[in-house]
Amino acid sequence: MTMMHTPDEEKVFQVEKLLRVMNKLVRRRSRRILGEFGITPPQFEALLAVREHGEITVGDLSNRLYLAYSTTTDLVDRMERNSLVERIRDENDRRVVRLRILERGQEMLREAMLARRRYLGSVLGKMTASETDVLVTALSVLHSHMVAE
Amino acid sequence: MTMMHTPDEEKVFQVEKLLRVMNKLVRRRSRRILGEFGITPPQFEALLAVREHGEITVGDLSNRLYLAYSTTTDLVDRMERNSLVERIRDENDRRVVRLRILERGQEMLREAMLARRRYLGSVLGKMTASETDVLVTALSVLHSHMVAE
Repeated sequence: MTMMHTPDEEKVFQVEKLLRVMNKLVRRRSRRILGEFGITPPQFEALLAVREHGEITVGDLSNRLYLAYSTTTDLVDRMERNSLVERIRDENDRRVVRLRILERGQEMLREAMLARRRYLGSVLGKMTASETDVLVTALSVLHSHMVAE
Repeated sequence: MTMMHTPDEEKVFQVEKLLRVMNKLVRRRSRRILGEFGITPPQFEALLAVREHGEITVGDLSNRLYLAYSTTTDLVDRMERNSLVERIRDENDRRVVRLRILERGQEMLREAMLARRRYLGSVLGKMTASETDVLVTALSVLHSHMVAE
């Protein structure tokens, strides 16, 4: 167990910036895949939310995305036409409509994930095995302290 | 210069996951600040875009955010009422309306950034100085290869 101390401000600045900039670069790559599936970033976020929260209602989805109900309905209409999700009736209350991710939606999310890994794979391919090992260890240490925070 | 090679698949998997999970944790912290300013994540994204692209039109903003024009107008209305941005007339073409970030908007973005740094500062405070140095170096190496990619 390490004692708490005040870390070097410049180091905090660097870590924050590096994580933020790299995340932006990775995201940019995985988003190229979106165009191939004919979907927009907000539809992608909606798809992630539907997968994460199982059979979610449009109302819950609009709360999760912080978008107006009408905006969310438009998003869902386009996603349904694109065979990414389907609307289903709640078995206990037929008035309630829920969303379910379809195979094409799952495939879209898998492809976006593969694009992230391909990109990071090509970047790690330029580092030595020991540089990569040091990176994995350092990130794991940072992550473990974040989770404990 | 390092020769390109095929990196260990498991390592790629770990780096991708660690970066993604940590980004989510950092984002969650900085978003707590949003509530204090009474703004939603989509308004926060819009504010970042207005700051990044200077005096942007509502049309350009809606393209950047991949949201319908009417949705973007609603966002901007609420941001203007919240004194985060203001609408200004283009000097050369009075029909064109542009958005400009206001002091309160800048302050909001500064506070969100400070929240990220505070959080990472408290996490790095649990690591030793040498663990932090290794982390900064490893992230810098990864970043340099990403930028060169």
